[in-house]
Amino acid sequence: MDISKYKSQERLLLAVDCIIFGFGGKQMKALLIKRGFQPEKGKWSLMGGFVNKNENVDAAAARILRQLTGLKDIYMEQLHCFGDTKRDSAGRVVSIAYFALINIAEYNEQLTSDHEARWFPLDKIPTLIFDHKQMVQKAKERLQQKVANHPIGFELLPVKFTLPQLQSLYEGIYESPLDKRNFTRKILSLNILKKLAEKEKESSRKGAFYYVFDRDKYGKLNHDGIKFL
Amino acid sequence: MDISKYKSQERLLLAVDCIIFGFGGKQMKALLIKRGFQPEKGKWSLMGGFVNKNENVDAAAARILRQLTGLKDIYMEQLHCFGDTKRDSAGRVVSIAYFALINIAEYNEQLTSDHEARWFPLDKIPTLIFDHKQMVQKAKERLQQKVANHPIGFELLPVKFTLPQLQSLYEGIYESPLDKRNFTRKILSLNILKKLAEKEKESSRKGAFYYVFDRDKYGKLNHDGIKFL
Repeated sequence: MDISKYKSQERLLLAVDCIIFGFGGKQMKALLIKRGFQPEKGKWSLMGGFVNKNENVDAAAARILRQLTGLKDIYMEQLHCFGDTKRDSAGRVVSIAYFALINIAEYNEQLTSDHEARWFPLDKIPTLIFDHKQMVQKAKERLQQKVANHPIGFELLPVKFTLPQLQSLYEGIYESPLDKRNFTRKILSLNILKKLAEKEKESSRKGAFYYVFDRDKYGKLNHDGIKFL
Repeated sequence: MDISKYKSQERLLLAVDCIIFGFGGKQMKALLIKRGFQPEKGKWSLMGGFVNKNENVDAAAARILRQLTGLKDIYMEQLHCFGDTKRDSAGRVVSIAYFALINIAEYNEQLTSDHEARWFPLDKIPTLIFDHKQMVQKAKERLQQKVANHPIGFELLPVKFTLPQLQSLYEGIYESPLDKRNFTRKILSLNILKKLAEKEKESSRKGAFYYVFDRDKYGKLNHDGIKFL
């Protein structure tokens, strides 16, 4: 490589695509939109757009999420660069995939309906354009790794939540049921939960105590890492 | 976004940079080169180059590693996209960073000397150009995560190795000493090692038995994941 290459080298289209995960109280879901233009118009797609020349890639991901959904100040993490030459049928586009975590109940009203966005349970994702299914699959795997090594739930749950809700979240991410007793023991041993005096009574007659995250301990574990399962 | 954007959208320079980790028997090291052109000519740098228009990004990383070092068929993994607008002082270049793992003894002769490549212990990395120090830091963190969740050593160690060598590898990655007894107990409990009858006798009078990886079990654990520490 030579400095003259900066001038003569071919430039490429660079895009970002976002996998938006949300927890609705019982299930993990992903937010998809109907693509509004050709090719593949009308098909289900992740949200995406091009990176501009004078824009950081991370900033482009945040801008596109905001433009398409109205969501801002959302937890986002870079996932992977998808760089195969044939991945987009309309031309060579390298895409940097991001995933976002949100609490559906909190943000649903912010979501604009202009783009026909819809939440799909993770086990019912429809056919997606290009390599977007691979992106969702990779994001699911990353989320599973994340759960194994970090506390999770802060971005996905309401401020106060019950242990059954927290277990549903973990089950939704692992896509398999967990033993209630083991789960409760392990999650309490992390020492990141504070039990409230108040009970949630809609889901069962007996009711389930509400919990909140201990922000300091959650933050420390998030930094240090844990071994959950 | 509209389809016409495919034509009108600004295109960007896309590069790859490679962090090449090697184990020399006692220390973890990274391979660096002296940059051969302006800007920053003569300064230490990761190996990198541009992605061509008709080339998969993964293929570009492999090609650049091969061109600059002679190394091929090396274990490589994508690390992260570094996309800040100001990261390269010569212009806007988005870089996809990769890391590679090699056994130094096995590959050292393949390395061409044309590019003034040199191995540096991880705790003695010199000042690097642009954001390359951040790239090395992120690669070290990824490697530490990897070790916590996957068996490691297959690409980094010779076919037969001793437990002290394996411990040095782990210590090099964690950048801190490990208790010999705990380490031995944990590593043997993974059940991925086969003990040979032969001893290595150069390092100590008593000698240390050689081990090899059980490829099947190593592969299975690599797929399923482990909790090492």
